[in-house]
Amino acid sequence: MPQRIGIIDLGSNTTRMVIYEYEWDQFFRLEDEIREVVRLREGMGRTNVLRAAAIQRAVNAMRMFKDLGDGLGVSKVIVVATSAVRDAVNRDSFLARVRAETGWTLRLLSGEEEGYYGALGAVNATCLQDGFVIDLGGGSAQIVEVREGLPGRVASLPLGALRLTELFLSPDKIKPEQVAALQAFIDEQLAHLDWFKARPGDRLVAIGGAIRNLGKIDQVRKRYPLSTIHGYRLAAADVAGMADELWRLSLKKRRAVNGLRSDRADIIPAAAIAYDMLLKRSGFESLIISRPGLREGLFFEHFLSRQPQPLIPDLRRFSILNLARIFGFDDPHSRHVAFLALRMFDDLRPVHELDEDYRELLWAAGILHDIGAIINYPYHHQHSYYIILNYTLYGYSPRELAIIALIARYHRNKGVPKPREMAPLLTNEDKRALVILCGIIRLAEYLERGRRQVVRDLRCHADPENGWVQIETLTTGHAAIELWEAERNLDVLSAALEMDVELVEGVWLGDE
Amino acid sequence: MPQRIGIIDLGSNTTRMVIYEYEWDQFFRLEDEIREVVRLREGMGRTNVLRAAAIQRAVNAMRMFKDLGDGLGVSKVIVVATSAVRDAVNRDSFLARVRAETGWTLRLLSGEEEGYYGALGAVNATCLQDGFVIDLGGGSAQIVEVREGLPGRVASLPLGALRLTELFLSPDKIKPEQVAALQAFIDEQLAHLDWFKARPGDRLVAIGGAIRNLGKIDQVRKRYPLSTIHGYRLAAADVAGMADELWRLSLKKRRAVNGLRSDRADIIPAAAIAYDMLLKRSGFESLIISRPGLREGLFFEHFLSRQPQPLIPDLRRFSILNLARIFGFDDPHSRHVAFLALRMFDDLRPVHELDEDYRELLWAAGILHDIGAIINYPYHHQHSYYIILNYTLYGYSPRELAIIALIARYHRNKGVPKPREMAPLLTNEDKRALVILCGIIRLAEYLERGRRQVVRDLRCHADPENGWVQIETLTTGHAAIELWEAERNLDVLSAALEMDVELVEGVWLGDE
Repeated sequence: MPQRIGIIDLGSNTTRMVIYEYEWDQFFRLEDEIREVVRLREGMGRTNVLRAAAIQRAVNAMRMFKDLGDGLGVSKVIVVATSAVRDAVNRDSFLARVRAETGWTLRLLSGEEEGYYGALGAVNATCLQDGFVIDLGGGSAQIVEVREGLPGRVASLPLGALRLTELFLSPDKIKPEQVAALQAFIDEQLAHLDWFKARPGDRLVAIGGAIRNLGKIDQVRKRYPLSTIHGYRLAAADVAGMADELWRLSLKKRRAVNGLRSDRADIIPAAAIAYDMLLKRSGFESLIISRPGLREGLFFEHFLSRQPQPLIPDLRRFSILNLARIFGFDDPHSRHVAFLALRMFDDLRPVHELDEDYRELLWAAGILHDIGAIINYPYHHQHSYYIILNYTLYGYSPRELAIIALIARYHRNKGVPKPREMAPLLTNEDKRALVILCGIIRLAEYLERGRRQVVRDLRCHADPENGWVQIETLTTGHAAIELWEAERNLDVLSAALEMDVELVEGVWLGDE
Repeated sequence: MPQRIGIIDLGSNTTRMVIYEYEWDQFFRLEDEIREVVRLREGMGRTNVLRAAAIQRAVNAMRMFKDLGDGLGVSKVIVVATSAVRDAVNRDSFLARVRAETGWTLRLLSGEEEGYYGALGAVNATCLQDGFVIDLGGGSAQIVEVREGLPGRVASLPLGALRLTELFLSPDKIKPEQVAALQAFIDEQLAHLDWFKARPGDRLVAIGGAIRNLGKIDQVRKRYPLSTIHGYRLAAADVAGMADELWRLSLKKRRAVNGLRSDRADIIPAAAIAYDMLLKRSGFESLIISRPGLREGLFFEHFLSRQPQPLIPDLRRFSILNLARIFGFDDPHSRHVAFLALRMFDDLRPVHELDEDYRELLWAAGILHDIGAIINYPYHHQHSYYIILNYTLYGYSPRELAIIALIARYHRNKGVPKPREMAPLLTNEDKRALVILCGIIRLAEYLERGRRQVVRDLRCHADPENGWVQIETLTTGHAAIELWEAERNLDVLSAALEMDVELVEGVWLGDE
């Protein structure tokens, strides 16, 4: 039976609740999400006293979140608070008030814990093995080193966007000397952080509302073809451009920037400047945005508490099977299409000479190719494409998502494979691979047209010199529909390989 | 437990199998569909002998379909044959051959039966009450009169597109005198059909591959914003245009016509000419295309066999609940959002003065507003929009679908309601209605934000002269989240009505 859990973090700028439905280790799905701009830090300045209006906003938000959790029948709620409460001199009184109003005991996270959970969320959503996770929030910024997939060293610095804005910048028209003072402060904070340096192979992942918003602005400018932010790569040069540009705009003009949430227009200059300096300091040429962060890190700790480590084992595989399961298509047919496709990929390696990385994407498309059927059967290949692009698959880059979605899009005999609006995300080699992979999955699909695994296996034999490939199907019985349909769908693979492709019926003799 | 049934019709040009998953009276879903261009009539000419090659193609198709049915575990298969077999002198031998190869006993439909089932499929998918259904296939055309929702009189005429093409037209370059002879033949066939005349209020529905293809060509030309064909309205003038144009093109040029399936390029001129004459004869100014036809009529007879009549009671309501059920969102929350929205619609009637027809669309959007959450929560309003437009909802016009989808699209506070790419389908009154209906559903959604029906009911009080509306919520308990969120989401309704909208908390005292 699936259970539901609520996770709330009470940040300096925003508080958010997520509600996940899950089965231990197996499956999870975001069931609901609610966000309130509470601005708990507002008015604290250098006094570190939580102000009455801010406390009231926070208490109101907590009461609402409690209503939502009750309505959705959550069996557990985890509530954490970060730097605004951590730094507040009147924090005990605030925590008691929340407890009185909701019955909840807030867990006060230290800067190190905040960094750890943020990184845990990001690592479980991006396959980050080595590098750093930055979580720049309203009050503080955490820099976390990740080695072999596990969060390690943490620096928690007073570099939150709301705090920096309050300390250094005018609300509306910002002056150059204010920016200079802000930069000097950030420089000073980063001065002693000698371990925050990009090593070869390291990646930088960033989480939090501010970076998502900078990413969104960049997506709009680049006419990025996906609507999701997770996995988006933001170049250091583009961050530098925004850092130099946004503070020069009045608040009103900032509010009109395409892609910018108007309730972040005041704090975005400080965030852009801080990220610019973090990138320059560490020497990373780009960062990757992760939507999951602190809340998801707390969720994963719970969800994976029966595992030896709070890491999803084989994240990319898990993501695909999780999605397949949500759509009820994790079935023998999909698995068998994936199996036959991989067999062709492997046997035809000397012919197609594709990079091994494509093999996994082909498998993923095999598992997911039919998920669109829930929307409407006759166009289900289009709907599978839509779902793969719009569901947030953890562990894949946007380029990889596009390839998986396109392979699924062309698994049926409806048109010649084309990169469509995904073209900007693909390399030339990807475009060559795409037609081959579509040719393979199409054949695999039709060899499994009866959805009964009667073409149990296959072997490919190739004569590259004379330009032909033979596919020997190993059947366990009468396979009229499979052979007939496959025969008519050799053309995509044949055109992609520029070779004749022939089909021969063989008999499956069992595994040796 | 859902069951599966396979329905096959062996037509003169094409044979198709559909597999439906269903629960008696309650629920159905197209699980698979396969199509073979068998051209059973090919080479029969005037001899009425099924030719050897055609028989072999038909037997091959039946064997494949049997494989598919077996693979999908159908508990029953219904196989019918229409005019090619009906007319054939060697039909008994053919039927015996199919029985020997598959074990299936084909049911040979008379022209009247063919007409009846085609109309039954169309009526159950379009809410056609009075008018006619035309099914123009490969061999014959059926014209069926529908009165009070039930198919009645049938004329079965030898006007199938493949037959007409074989009898009158060259395969490639068609001569004007061939067209004249064809028209004379059609005229002669229609001469005695005095009951096939449009009466006031009558509608004409057309089914079959030929009209779907003509519709597709028209959709491409008009940049129709939906990808589905069902419910599409084709003007008589546009049919006349295609009838006059297509025969003048060589086969090669016809194959290049945008929207035309290349395997229909040979028979489409005859189909266009026949439809043009049918429209002119009967006096209809347009026809509506139904995707469901003969096969679905056979399915509905089975699916509804426990009903007094083979008609889905309250088709439009059934369609919405069927879709909601597929996505697992037929839940108390969706029903309550629909309920609160209708209450506002009713109470505010003197203020908004909207046509009653919008009320049902508002209800439908209330039931369906969350179905997109299965794809991804943060953008679920967009995904609900996508699903509603792409799933084929029976009983609604494209305009109505667009309105339902748009209301669902704007149920959350993400942007100001706009008709988007659906604008060409909407009237000016629709555009005015849209912002009001979006304002209503948004308020209903937030008054049910906790998904627990705590705002049990509401009342609206309006003072149009002084320009204000009050919404009195009747709550059964603590409704912090609902009132807070609703308070912040009064703006869309307020702007739409050009009135102040205020919220007042009241207590639910039970139904009187």
